[in-house]
Amino acid sequence: MTTDATAPVLGWLGTGRMGAAMARRLIDEGESVSVWNRTKSKTAPLVGRGATAVDRIADLGSCDVVFVMVSTPKDLEEVVAGPQGLLSGQQRPGAIVDCSTVSAATSAAVRAAATDAGVDFLAAPVSGNPHVVAEGGACIVASGPLDAFQRVRPYLEQIAKVAVHAGEGEQSRLVKLCHNLYLGMMTQALVEVTSLAEKGGTDRAAFLEFLNGTVLASDWVRKRTDDLIKRDWTPTFTTELLRKDFDLGLGAARSLEVPMPIGGAVYQLIQSAIGTGLGEADFLALYEQQAHGAALSEAQP
Amino acid sequence: MTTDATAPVLGWLGTGRMGAAMARRLIDEGESVSVWNRTKSKTAPLVGRGATAVDRIADLGSCDVVFVMVSTPKDLEEVVAGPQGLLSGQQRPGAIVDCSTVSAATSAAVRAAATDAGVDFLAAPVSGNPHVVAEGGACIVASGPLDAFQRVRPYLEQIAKVAVHAGEGEQSRLVKLCHNLYLGMMTQALVEVTSLAEKGGTDRAAFLEFLNGTVLASDWVRKRTDDLIKRDWTPTFTTELLRKDFDLGLGAARSLEVPMPIGGAVYQLIQSAIGTGLGEADFLALYEQQAHGAALSEAQP
Amino acid sequence: MTTDATAPVLGWLGTGRMGAAMARRLIDEGESVSVWNRTKSKTAPLVGRGATAVDRIADLGSCDVVFVMVSTPKDLEEVVAGPQGLLSGQQRPGAIVDCSTVSAATSAAVRAAATDAGVDFLAAPVSGNPHVVAEGGACIVASGPLDAFQRVRPYLEQIAKVAVHAGEGEQSRLVKLCHNLYLGMMTQALVEVTSLAEKGGTDRAAFLEFLNGTVLASDWVRKRTDDLIKRDWTPTFTTELLRKDFDLGLGAARSLEVPMPIGGAVYQLIQSAIGTGLGEADFLALYEQQAHGAALSEAQP
Amino acid sequence: MTTDATAPVLGWLGTGRMGAAMARRLIDEGESVSVWNRTKSKTAPLVGRGATAVDRIADLGSCDVVFVMVSTPKDLEEVVAGPQGLLSGQQRPGAIVDCSTVSAATSAAVRAAATDAGVDFLAAPVSGNPHVVAEGGACIVASGPLDAFQRVRPYLEQIAKVAVHAGEGEQSRLVKLCHNLYLGMMTQALVEVTSLAEKGGTDRAAFLEFLNGTVLASDWVRKRTDDLIKRDWTPTFTTELLRKDFDLGLGAARSLEVPMPIGGAVYQLIQSAIGTGLGEADFLALYEQQAHGAALSEAQP
Repeated sequence: MTTDATAPVLGWLGTGRMGAAMARRLIDEGESVSVWNRTKSKTAPLVGRGATAVDRIADLGSCDVVFVMVSTPKDLEEVVAGPQGLLSGQQRPGAIVDCSTVSAATSAAVRAAATDAGVDFLAAPVSGNPHVVAEGGACIVASGPLDAFQRVRPYLEQIAKVAVHAGEGEQSRLVKLCHNLYLGMMTQALVEVTSLAEKGGTDRAAFLEFLNGTVLASDWVRKRTDDLIKRDWTPTFTTELLRKDFDLGLGAARSLEVPMPIGGAVYQLIQSAIGTGLGEADFLALYEQQAHGAALSEAQP
Repeated sequence: MTTDATAPVLGWLGTGRMGAAMARRLIDEGESVSVWNRTKSKTAPLVGRGATAVDRIADLGSCDVVFVMVSTPKDLEEVVAGPQGLLSGQQRPGAIVDCSTVSAATSAAVRAAATDAGVDFLAAPVSGNPHVVAEGGACIVASGPLDAFQRVRPYLEQIAKVAVHAGEGEQSRLVKLCHNLYLGMMTQALVEVTSLAEKGGTDRAAFLEFLNGTVLASDWVRKRTDDLIKRDWTPTFTTELLRKDFDLGLGAARSLEVPMPIGGAVYQLIQSAIGTGLGEADFLALYEQQAHGAALSEAQP
Repeated sequence: MTTDATAPVLGWLGTGRMGAAMARRLIDEGESVSVWNRTKSKTAPLVGRGATAVDRIADLGSCDVVFVMVSTPKDLEEVVAGPQGLLSGQQRPGAIVDCSTVSAATSAAVRAAATDAGVDFLAAPVSGNPHVVAEGGACIVASGPLDAFQRVRPYLEQIAKVAVHAGEGEQSRLVKLCHNLYLGMMTQALVEVTSLAEKGGTDRAAFLEFLNGTVLASDWVRKRTDDLIKRDWTPTFTTELLRKDFDLGLGAARSLEVPMPIGGAVYQLIQSAIGTGLGEADFLALYEQQAHGAALSEAQP
Repeated sequence: MTTDATAPVLGWLGTGRMGAAMARRLIDEGESVSVWNRTKSKTAPLVGRGATAVDRIADLGSCDVVFVMVSTPKDLEEVVAGPQGLLSGQQRPGAIVDCSTVSAATSAAVRAAATDAGVDFLAAPVSGNPHVVAEGGACIVASGPLDAFQRVRPYLEQIAKVAVHAGEGEQSRLVKLCHNLYLGMMTQALVEVTSLAEKGGTDRAAFLEFLNGTVLASDWVRKRTDDLIKRDWTPTFTTELLRKDFDLGLGAARSLEVPMPIGGAVYQLIQSAIGTGLGEADFLALYEQQAHGAALSEAQP
């Protein structure tokens, strides 16, 4: 796409680290982007690359599509449905794409407000951090009206390498929870086999080097290999936060009546790890609990 | 390395599909390789690329290193320690590298025979099929004397992209079992989250497309995505064979006194899947059991 | 105790089947009991044995202790704290003992209303059905102020064979949930070993006869033995109701941060049983799921 | 039965504590019993009550039924099938009833020897200790030919309150393992709910008093209540011995292809408890592991 006279104009609400990284990809592709941020100075780097800063959220009402990336559910409600929000002006955008991480309930409430105002709403959480986004490696899972998804898909694919439509409702929130449940289960699986290899006499580094070479390897394990070798539990994401995701994910499974034999077992192991003091450590510290049960821990540095 | 007068000469025992793919990589790198196979005609393609075929196993006694890739534990015992085997001649190689998939017990017995004859023995199972080997994507995990590993490492790295030393004993066999336990656990984790996303309204294809884009993605899941979408359980590896690997892997965990909370739970799920008729299907059919418990199965094609 | 002039007067609110069975035990012990029921005619049998019926709930305000046994949380709130309730009159009882099965939240709300009115409140759920109560085999677990418990204990011990003080707050509700969690876990344990013995060639009846003779025997298993032999799943308590108790019990465990490895695993098995159609059957039908996984079901009548 | 001229004569091999307690019940019922023990002096108390001591095992060959209660599998093989054993004489008994605790393999071997010699063999392990036997509370589960069981049943019912026929083969050994698996599962269930009640504010003694009053109560929990209250882990049966029974029981389940979801989960918890140092404690010390995960342990005396 090019920024000619008829080009759609995009809006971007929220230019924190993650929002800025995403918006920049659109700008660098030549899109015409208007940006707003509570602290206006934070929009400067984007303006420097070609974006236009606006003073009021409602100024984005004339955009075809407005993306939102804010910190909390309350922020989302305010910038979209609040008295000064996106839906408060005379002009309203064609679609709102919310990339924030919020609960399905908040998402549904904001979606209802948008729909009432005649605006399509897509819930579109992102997998990846600002660094990954900048390199083009992020993934987006979106849910909401299919035709709206198809309209915004070209933009999503400028931002991320994969953009998937998960359904017409709040499915994208559930898909994100499924991702995090899978992460927790993979972690426990990993620490079980690592401790087994280790007790058999293979050191962690050698075992992980092998695993990282096989078809079972994942970028996530590769990225965490050094931490696991060094038993460095500086939190990237704490065990308590993982429990929170399991609370939500298993709660959804209960509502949908889906048994989760392994998911449920990992949840109890997470609880036990928290009970023994690993709650504020990185969740990869599940290794410590496993190694302790395997009588490995004292032998380790 | 080049095939000059002082170059080490390599031997290769067993040129079936897997053995031939591995030996060919050495030949194509310019190594001087002598090959033997029970059915001699099968060595022809390698001879055509520069290998030398020998008539008797003992003829490989003059090689620096002899690789073995045979089908069964009994074959391994015979070609190494049998009356016409590699250790039966006057000259013996410096090291034997066994890439066959055998039990730790057979491995230990053959190792003892080699060691008694003054020959270093490396147990070096391979992760990857002939196609993967040909493309240079295989991984090798080896165990045995460290100095022997270091001597043969350059050859292992011509064959595979990763060659790891797992210990001085039979650790490589255990590491391979750990790999397979991890595969089983990952599979059950995958079918749990897939069925959850699905019951929430996201189709399998969309969910897997998203997952395959994230840092949790693995080549194995990517490769099996189509089968899981189509519910095609044509066996690549049956549920009963996976149970066999869990028998061995959890047996090793019991001997080493390593608790396997998730490994043990998956084992029971595998058993239950076999009890309900999925034993001879591909093990990815664990999806069927999961979908049945989630009341999804009837709804699916 | 005898009904002399200075004897304490007891009140009873709610004379359904369970309430009547309990009140009758007090009357038959010679206590002076005033009774109220929404449908007054239901008090007749108790009046026939010596009770006094009152017209208005507030008439029980002059009693030393008033017992409550009603059907729903809403009923409890109404008969105690409603505009015509027990706390609405000029005179108020010394203590209220609620034997209904309600949530901890409702219990806490009613307790607060009573406490504000200067009345001690004991939450005192009962284990046992009307038949068991009549025979004197019920158990009561009560929580609330210890001195109130000690004052009413003689009455509780006229009603039940065991009366235990579980704490000063809502602990008795949790203890009842613990009982039900234990029941679910014991049931799954029972069906696992029964199916194992059975597949080994011992029929269910013989196995259960043996088990019922050992120190592990419980009245509950004895009572359900015939149903299990005949695979009679006519509900005494459905699988869905058991799931409801697990929802509450595991929810409490989560709040209190207590890992429940086996409780959590049984929960998933219950969910899976519901998914395969056993939700409205008696929860002992967990046997069917187990037998199916053991490939026993087709072989059975 | 009375000791008239035509009364069957019973033999008893092995009069240690358990054997003596069992034999004594037969003698006290008026049976004519001939006894043998390696250390002959140990037969004196039984002789004092009316038994006849014999010098050689083969002297029992003329008995109708010979009971065996020895310590080890090797003892069983020797006293039955050894050169001086029961089958070595000219006369052989009509049936052998082995009450020792041995493996199914040993049992099958001795059974084969007896059957070859034309003697019926019943494997009849006992549930109960000498004290329980003396009080008539033991249970016997027997397997072997049904007609032999029916012939000896009157004697079994003099010894124990329950005597069950579990099948024609080695089923009684499996039934005993099922009993022990059930014990392990019940124990873990017990410690989970106890710790939950406790963390909610109910002390262990009160909770257990309540549980012991309900239909879920068992003599085993009643008997162990004091130990659990006092956290007295003086072994009655160690965690390692329980693991041994789970090794055998789950091994049998694997052979018979019976999934054991909870049995398998408890097995891993037992392994973990051993790994953290509870192997030589009483298995009820599973409480410690549970309390530790619930962050209860430090708070307790």
